[in-house]
Amino acid sequence: MVNVYLFAVGTASVLAISLTTTVAEDEADLLKRAQELFEPLPKEMATPEFPITRERADLGRQLFFDPRMTVDANMSCASCHQPALYGTDALPTSIGVKGRPHPRNAPTNLNAALNIIHWRGDRESVEDQVIKALVSPITSGQPDLKAVEDRLGRIPGYASLFKAAFADEANPMTAQNIAKAIGAYERTLVTPSPFDSYLKGKSDALSATGRAGLKKFINTGCVMCHSGVGVGGGMYQKFGVVEDYWLATGSTTIDKGRFDVTKDPTDLYVFRVPSLRNVAMTAPYFHDGSVPTLPEAVKVMARVQLGVTLSDTDVREIVAFLESLTGDLPSNFTTVPTLPSGSIVPKQ
Amino acid sequence: MVNVYLFAVGTASVLAISLTTTVAEDEADLLKRAQELFEPLPKEMATPEFPITRERADLGRQLFFDPRMTVDANMSCASCHQPALYGTDALPTSIGVKGRPHPRNAPTNLNAALNIIHWRGDRESVEDQVIKALVSPITSGQPDLKAVEDRLGRIPGYASLFKAAFADEANPMTAQNIAKAIGAYERTLVTPSPFDSYLKGKSDALSATGRAGLKKFINTGCVMCHSGVGVGGGMYQKFGVVEDYWLATGSTTIDKGRFDVTKDPTDLYVFRVPSLRNVAMTAPYFHDGSVPTLPEAVKVMARVQLGVTLSDTDVREIVAFLESLTGDLPSNFTTVPTLPSGSIVPKQ
Repeated sequence: MVNVYLFAVGTASVLAISLTTTVAEDEADLLKRAQELFEPLPKEMATPEFPITRERADLGRQLFFDPRMTVDANMSCASCHQPALYGTDALPTSIGVKGRPHPRNAPTNLNAALNIIHWRGDRESVEDQVIKALVSPITSGQPDLKAVEDRLGRIPGYASLFKAAFADEANPMTAQNIAKAIGAYERTLVTPSPFDSYLKGKSDALSATGRAGLKKFINTGCVMCHSGVGVGGGMYQKFGVVEDYWLATGSTTIDKGRFDVTKDPTDLYVFRVPSLRNVAMTAPYFHDGSVPTLPEAVKVMARVQLGVTLSDTDVREIVAFLESLTGDLPSNFTTVPTLPSGSIVPKQ
Repeated sequence: MVNVYLFAVGTASVLAISLTTTVAEDEADLLKRAQELFEPLPKEMATPEFPITRERADLGRQLFFDPRMTVDANMSCASCHQPALYGTDALPTSIGVKGRPHPRNAPTNLNAALNIIHWRGDRESVEDQVIKALVSPITSGQPDLKAVEDRLGRIPGYASLFKAAFADEANPMTAQNIAKAIGAYERTLVTPSPFDSYLKGKSDALSATGRAGLKKFINTGCVMCHSGVGVGGGMYQKFGVVEDYWLATGSTTIDKGRFDVTKDPTDLYVFRVPSLRNVAMTAPYFHDGSVPTLPEAVKVMARVQLGVTLSDTDVREIVAFLESLTGDLPSNFTTVPTLPSGSIVPKQ
């Protein structure tokens, strides 16, 4: 449902672009254009289907940081979505349990519930992502959801936390509830940034360079895909519209993207457009992390998506705008909970 | 130097035991005995050789949480010393880089600078531990210290942090300074507990059960080794005085302990006595994590060290005392820093 909403914003943005041919001429005009194209972050990302309660989000926070659900009890959600690295692992592509390589870059989990989930959009929601991660051979290594539930059942402190979070259920310690709880937690992870203040009318929340970059971001056409509340995240797009992406990124593996999910030839090399929120803090870039720095990533995008060669000044200004998307980290992400104690691994 | 000091405390404790044969008879007597045997935690653990400055501890905190120094850039100090698990990984024995097994249990890094470092005492200080960890094939996988320095040199944000922490050095980004900084950070990680309040004279900081447990802890003889500021941590002792330890723990691998370090036959099966601070939160137990619960660990210790069979009531009371050693986690441990951004792994 959120996705549908974001698609609508995406479409509206494209319309806005089509209908407005004039370049933003002054600060007031720029702000007005920005307000048409983007919107500030909500306070949290609950939906009617996925409500947030304090108890669920608190439980979900514990589970997010708990390594004891995965096969060797040594990796948690926070292993690839580290608070110290803005919800990423700073790797081109992640390393899972038993050293198994993940095929794609771990996107930040911050604000994730606003976006299409995963690079190929093969997750319905953050909750669906959790359920699938719990039995993925790469992120979990557990044979089935029952094995995950059994693990938690062996840590005494969790029973009361599940009971509190799912009070009307007789046996609340289920994988579905693990997903709901972690989902509820993730739906609280919103990072309001200077750009949100700007969108609310505080023009000097962006530096003059940042505002110049915003203007170029709009007028160069970046905003055709990177619009809405996520500044991206709401639509699919072929990576490499003008030119094959790997010619610019130097990727050594060619990922067919969403085609491998849908088998639809029009989905060849199609990925979800990533949200650019916190992009300055989430290097390296693209689905395969093939580009290590933001200025380089901006150049690659202009080249392969728009056929535009940006000057160094253009890049510097656009990067200054993108830096204004770096938000405040929520304290329930940077502050780690204390987990119920207990070692669940059998005696050696 | 700290160790020497602690050895002195250890020796004093044993003397105190020898000179006092009467059982603690009332609450005032119990407190007095406890004050002779233990001491409250200091505010921090600086020494003249290893001072703490704000800049060094802040830098050390960043480095502690940064996975980019290790060979695959996916493990940090915090991977095995997790804030959510009281500075442990809750595993019997840790899993290092590339899935490499560590031979021993990861002790908590909380209050660590007060103790003999590592199970076999083969580290001089927390700083020495860091230097050796930076090139350990298990915890780092890097070939040499130069490789670690090179990694940090590729993350732009670190240069100014090293400059601030080591202002009088021309080229401060060295492995020795990494160790000094992480050491300075670790020397701030002190966890004052209800037992510290008790030692300062607040008798009701321990429950009646906890005080009964303390009395049994003293009078059973646990305190012969577990004394001083760390309630242990200050001396070596053979594990299995009365009976081979593995008969009680069920360990399948027999670790020769300090013998493998010194080759001295009197060091066979000798380990450092672990500090019991936060022991209720740091399961599983012993050098090989072979015992998953605290009550079981207490029984094993009484049996193999003292030849004593504890009743269930004894165990319950001693565990209640040990729970009073669970301290408050320092906010600079539970709150994760934001790291300088940058992906240091070469393009795929």
